[in-house]
Amino acid sequence: MTSDPVRLGVAGLGRAFMLMVPTFDADPRVKLVAAAAPRQESRDAFEREYGGTGHETIEALCADPAVEAVYIATPHQMHVDHVLAAAKAGKHILVEKPLAISMEDADRMVSAARDAGVHLIVGPSHSFDPPVDLAARLIESGEFGQLRMIQALNYTDFLYRPRRPEELRTEEGGGVLFSQAIHQIDVVRRLAGGMAENIFAMTGAWDPKRPTEGAFTALMTFQGGCFANLTYSGYAHFDSDIWMNDVGELGQVKKAGSYGGARRALMDLNPDDEARLKTTRTFGSGTTVDAAHNEHFGPVIALCDRADLKLTPDGIEVFGDTERSFIEAPFGPAPRRTVIDALVGAVRNDEPPAQTGEWGLASLEVCHAILQSAASGQPVALQRQCRTSQQEPTE
Amino acid sequence: MTSDPVRLGVAGLGRAFMLMVPTFDADPRVKLVAAAAPRQESRDAFEREYGGTGHETIEALCADPAVEAVYIATPHQMHVDHVLAAAKAGKHILVEKPLAISMEDADRMVSAARDAGVHLIVGPSHSFDPPVDLAARLIESGEFGQLRMIQALNYTDFLYRPRRPEELRTEEGGGVLFSQAIHQIDVVRRLAGGMAENIFAMTGAWDPKRPTEGAFTALMTFQGGCFANLTYSGYAHFDSDIWMNDVGELGQVKKAGSYGGARRALMDLNPDDEARLKTTRTFGSGTTVDAAHNEHFGPVIALCDRADLKLTPDGIEVFGDTERSFIEAPFGPAPRRTVIDALVGAVRNDEPPAQTGEWGLASLEVCHAILQSAASGQPVALQRQCRTSQQEPTE
Repeated sequence: MTSDPVRLGVAGLGRAFMLMVPTFDADPRVKLVAAAAPRQESRDAFEREYGGTGHETIEALCADPAVEAVYIATPHQMHVDHVLAAAKAGKHILVEKPLAISMEDADRMVSAARDAGVHLIVGPSHSFDPPVDLAARLIESGEFGQLRMIQALNYTDFLYRPRRPEELRTEEGGGVLFSQAIHQIDVVRRLAGGMAENIFAMTGAWDPKRPTEGAFTALMTFQGGCFANLTYSGYAHFDSDIWMNDVGELGQVKKAGSYGGARRALMDLNPDDEARLKTTRTFGSGTTVDAAHNEHFGPVIALCDRADLKLTPDGIEVFGDTERSFIEAPFGPAPRRTVIDALVGAVRNDEPPAQTGEWGLASLEVCHAILQSAASGQPVALQRQCRTSQQEPTE
Repeated sequence: MTSDPVRLGVAGLGRAFMLMVPTFDADPRVKLVAAAAPRQESRDAFEREYGGTGHETIEALCADPAVEAVYIATPHQMHVDHVLAAAKAGKHILVEKPLAISMEDADRMVSAARDAGVHLIVGPSHSFDPPVDLAARLIESGEFGQLRMIQALNYTDFLYRPRRPEELRTEEGGGVLFSQAIHQIDVVRRLAGGMAENIFAMTGAWDPKRPTEGAFTALMTFQGGCFANLTYSGYAHFDSDIWMNDVGELGQVKKAGSYGGARRALMDLNPDDEARLKTTRTFGSGTTVDAAHNEHFGPVIALCDRADLKLTPDGIEVFGDTERSFIEAPFGPAPRRTVIDALVGAVRNDEPPAQTGEWGLASLEVCHAILQSAASGQPVALQRQCRTSQQEPTE
């Protein structure tokens, strides 16, 4: 046991890493000591900023003795190879959601981490957001009676953000299922305790120019009788952040007059231009978000016997039988501190995180079940679900 | 053809009629000439107010030669007998939703009206709300491309409003299915053109003291590929009117500080006291609502290819590809003028209304299918659906 910062190596210096930069920069419990990235420019920027080593390959990063744990922030389809490499090198792993695209890959990753005796944490995901964490603990406490129903919805411009071509191909993990549904599934499973039983869903792929699922809606049942309603549209029309106090997904206050910006920025771009535009959002090129609130993934309401809990970027609105109140989920000192809590807990104290590899595999199963149910018109029984490993409130 | 007011007889002077009083009082196209009610006090109040005849029985009302059309606003379970009586007497009929409780009764009512050659209009229902009517016409026009998905949700205090005992027994038409789901189904069917194909649903009956369905959630598909997500909770916690500009269902501006009022008013009442409390909301006892906006049934978003249409009490927010705009649905001169439009159109001009008996039967089928799907855990195929009879914009 030591209180030294966790020495982290970063695999992939793209958009996902960019979104973690404010966390890493603000949290003294973690120190970035190395990175791997194919682009020289990104490696140089990393070395300038953090003074560590910029490696060309994941293998070199994993072999770096300065690295205790690897944060895998590469594109979805590369997660499997990179997790296997890190496990083989005996490093603890924080891997971006989704754990993998195929269930077979997810299984291999979970086995590899277990065999190597390293912790595998799937995150960040919006289920780490402090208001979700707070709501999960309130529900577990039983203070408001039994959890009965969850409604989650989110309307964003996801499909019109700059994309590499494979991000618009479902079979390669593109579209809203593997990138966005996974958040909502994580959030809802976290609140309901994890053990989903059945799901029935419909999906929409409505823009022939971006021919992947851009929307879905689903009903899920959970062990114990709770059910959940999930809806997502990434088609960039209605923006449900107006129901989240005009705070965006990353905790930033949204600017007036920015309506339609995502679609406008893409107009008349060909796929090469668009992929290039995406690189302006990577490390060394982009700017970080200035968050003033917790992150969120759209409106979520959890109905219990004696209160509805409505998540906001700043906490939980409690709509009780005769009174309403507010329970704050404090922001900061840095965004995503709960991800670092999980990393430090695992690496320094051998505490299993709430969202292990098994957890990520279970959420991935739900993504596939949504596609399967939408194709068949039938409900799909879930077989690989698990509880959150953090069953007891620990605060 | 004549422009004389339609001479209307009212069957039932309870809560449903009370909610129509502002409409009848303000709209010169209709004149109340008679009523039937079991309570002397209500009949006296009617005669004082309108100068017509207060009958003791429906049969007497239907036999009254002054009556051209009958508005049936009696409890759900009585609709069938009263519609049959009015049809037998050759009177046109406006019957409150739901048309009936059982499909068999609904079939008998539709047949009786057809055989008698009278118009049968099912309403008012929130599908008559001017913003719904406007949205349906905008969708039909094709201006925004194809309709893809509808999300409708409503969180109210329905289950804790004062109830007669049968209003808390599902098999007698109690609970949120037959009183509330029917509105949401009417709204969604109206927007999607009527022809629902399949539904998958879950219901919640969570308060043992009021042991009927108080919540449900459902996914529906429609001919043409559109799908819809419907959610309702009447458990009086979160109130979704905060997402409707703090305007209540009846178009009234909601008072601050009224949170929890429904549950507080019921505390410590026994069923007899509660049924008595309900009579304070009938004609001659209660007060009417002061509406300043159109009525609504909670947030509704219709996703089309080139815009999401979000209904508000005052019109439609159009979230387009790069711009947003607002299309007003004017309020007044009286609330529910579209119901009188339908009545006058049918009685004076022989125009079939948008919501005929067949329409009401189709929406009732969906209520039953929700219960059936929730019980079986399987999707239910709908067999009795119909289009709105008003296929062409008539403005």
